Amino acid sequence: MNYFSSDFKLGILGGGQLGKMLLAETRKFDIQTYVLDPSMDAPCQFGATHFFIGDLMDYDTVYEFGQKVDLLTIEIENVNLDALDTLESEGFEVYPSPKTLRLIQNKGVQKDFYVENQIPTAAFKRFNNLNKLRSEIENGLIEMPFVWKSAQFGYDGNGVKIIRSIDDIENLQNVECIAEQMVPFKNELAVIVARSKSGEVKTYPVVEMEFHPEANQVEYVICPARIDFNIAKKANKIALQVSEAYNHVGLLAVEMFQTHDEGILVNEVAPRPHNSGHYSIEASYTSQFENHLRAILDLPLGNTDSKVAGIMVNLVGAEGYSGKVIYQNIEKIMAIDGVTPHIYGKKETRPFRKMGHVTIVNENMTEARRIAEEVKNTIRVITK
Amino acid sequence: MNYFSSDFKLGILGGGQLGKMLLAETRKFDIQTYVLDPSMDAPCQFGATHFFIGDLMDYDTVYEFGQKVDLLTIEIENVNLDALDTLESEGFEVYPSPKTLRLIQNKGVQKDFYVENQIPTAAFKRFNNLNKLRSEIENGLIEMPFVWKSAQFGYDGNGVKIIRSIDDIENLQNVECIAEQMVPFKNELAVIVARSKSGEVKTYPVVEMEFHPEANQVEYVICPARIDFNIAKKANKIALQVSEAYNHVGLLAVEMFQTHDEGILVNEVAPRPHNSGHYSIEASYTSQFENHLRAILDLPLGNTDSKVAGIMVNLVGAEGYSGKVIYQNIEKIMAIDGVTPHIYGKKETRPFRKMGHVTIVNENMTEARRIAEEVKNTIRVITK
Repeated sequence: MNYFSSDFKLGILGGGQLGKMLLAETRKFDIQTYVLDPSMDAPCQFGATHFFIGDLMDYDTVYEFGQKVDLLTIEIENVNLDALDTLESEGFEVYPSPKTLRLIQNKGVQKDFYVENQIPTAAFKRFNNLNKLRSEIENGLIEMPFVWKSAQFGYDGNGVKIIRSIDDIENLQNVECIAEQMVPFKNELAVIVARSKSGEVKTYPVVEMEFHPEANQVEYVICPARIDFNIAKKANKIALQVSEAYNHVGLLAVEMFQTHDEGILVNEVAPRPHNSGHYSIEASYTSQFENHLRAILDLPLGNTDSKVAGIMVNLVGAEGYSGKVIYQNIEKIMAIDGVTPHIYGKKETRPFRKMGHVTIVNENMTEARRIAEEVKNTIRVITK
Repeated sequence: MNYFSSDFKLGILGGGQLGKMLLAETRKFDIQTYVLDPSMDAPCQFGATHFFIGDLMDYDTVYEFGQKVDLLTIEIENVNLDALDTLESEGFEVYPSPKTLRLIQNKGVQKDFYVENQIPTAAFKRFNNLNKLRSEIENGLIEMPFVWKSAQFGYDGNGVKIIRSIDDIENLQNVECIAEQMVPFKNELAVIVARSKSGEVKTYPVVEMEFHPEANQVEYVICPARIDFNIAKKANKIALQVSEAYNHVGLLAVEMFQTHDEGILVNEVAPRPHNSGHYSIEASYTSQFENHLRAILDLPLGNTDSKVAGIMVNLVGAEGYSGKVIYQNIEKIMAIDGVTPHIYGKKETRPFRKMGHVTIVNENMTEARRIAEEVKNTIRVITK
């Protein structure tokens, strides 16, 4: 198949920022793209060959969209998998496959999968609904504190809560969930694995999520992680093990905890480009978006090494501001060498909404880290 | 003015590959774009907020397009300057200004400008038409060989011819032209200068055009140029002198000859992103396209330094092939580390038509140069 300047059509389910950055690569290669998203204001509304509005969880919508294209991929996991199953059974190409997505979409299934495949992960219990969890707590069968996770539809910290007493579960949704042992960890790490249709595999360097010392929120994604070589080797090996178990095509972002006794536990995975790989646009020889494209189109994978050190800062809406967004002091951070803002194209800001990110690259990691903090303290996502 | 995720509209005259690569940066910053081009198949047809079809040399078309936007820029010099004059006089922002464009659009005027501003350039004579040139040759007033250049509308070697005898001028168009002394040179060099509205100036490293030893065609654009430090310093200084003389806003690509006695002569300039700066997408901290945008929007200029050595190979249509394009062996070059093809999105190839380019980046210049030759010898732009 010839993809470049041809009639080949790539379909993308989801039109958010991940899709938008993926589209940039398809333009470079002149590949036709069809995007489906429920919102007419989606970041992908420009840059695609054709943009369609529709419900990603609706069988007919996804099935009909899939029939328009030659190959289907996703930028969000919450899509109708039955429609993808039908499309695949009719001979359409879908990457990642609905089989892989089914093993990931539900966090309970995901955790069971790790256990079955001898992949180290924190201890957990699955519950069909909140009432069942409550009765186990009442019977003293669950140790506090623990982490509650909604089995489905969680994103960016939604659907996750630390439970320290039974009162903490009161306002949670009565949905399928897991209770996970709270593991104290030294570092949160991630490895992105690219795997092509014909099985070529490449891993990006291990990255580190640096947390705010008080707010317990990820502040910086740092590549390469400032960790011991042996830990990096171990994290890379486990990521490859997870990748092989899922037999995915495209990217797989593997999030992990480095425990205090230097163990690695897999937290969760995403079978697509991931926030922890945004730094790669500026820092790597091949960005994660280009490698996702290469992998699903069965082109040779690009070099995942870094040219320079890279740090990513998320731009989220400031607390107390809702409405038409402005990026206060963006011109100040643009005056610093090696600083590149990426604005996702959402017109309205809300507290903690992901509105963009900023990448800092530098030959020197210490300097990159210093600049990242300066960026973080300078730019604010607010309203007029 | 707030450009990001706002109602601000940037207009771009011309929808070719330069516009397409500029659009990629506007998407990253979520800036609205309006593009005008005569062809409905232009590379910019996707990726702009709105794409308009119309004649760039028509006064009314350009004037009406300009009224729709907040700021106007170009990706091609051959646009109606009277319309831009009117727009500017009515208070619209146009960068580069029609005044600068008028000094560049006509090669005779451009050469006169160098002489007036003590900018070193090859000796030349201007002629209103071919007949006047012919009679000077017949009267023995012009030394052969010389370089004939059409005063207007030349591009990519069109409108340029080496004249070795009077017979060579027979098939030339009877248009305004110049006869330029043929200067033997050691190297063809270029420097891209970015200059913002408020006068901030940054230069990219000096690049070198390496010619095919027999075909006398540019094969590789190499950054940094493999030249003596003092020559690079001199070329940079002259480029800054040219930039200051033109008082341009945006990019100015200054093409120069390094003569055998280590002199520098300015050949010609382009007041926009330029083929000699394409390597910057992968190799530089800030690409030429991002810096053009920063300059015309009066944002701080980005770092023009390189992360790694960069070499650019143009992908032009192979001789003997016209029609629906295919890029033979593109998957072979994509298997090489640090190789990135850019396909412009032209469906039809013709001999020597610019269809794309390939960038090769590497920490080591010798290795980059070796890979560039491998790329050049592998990929072919042909038809099915």
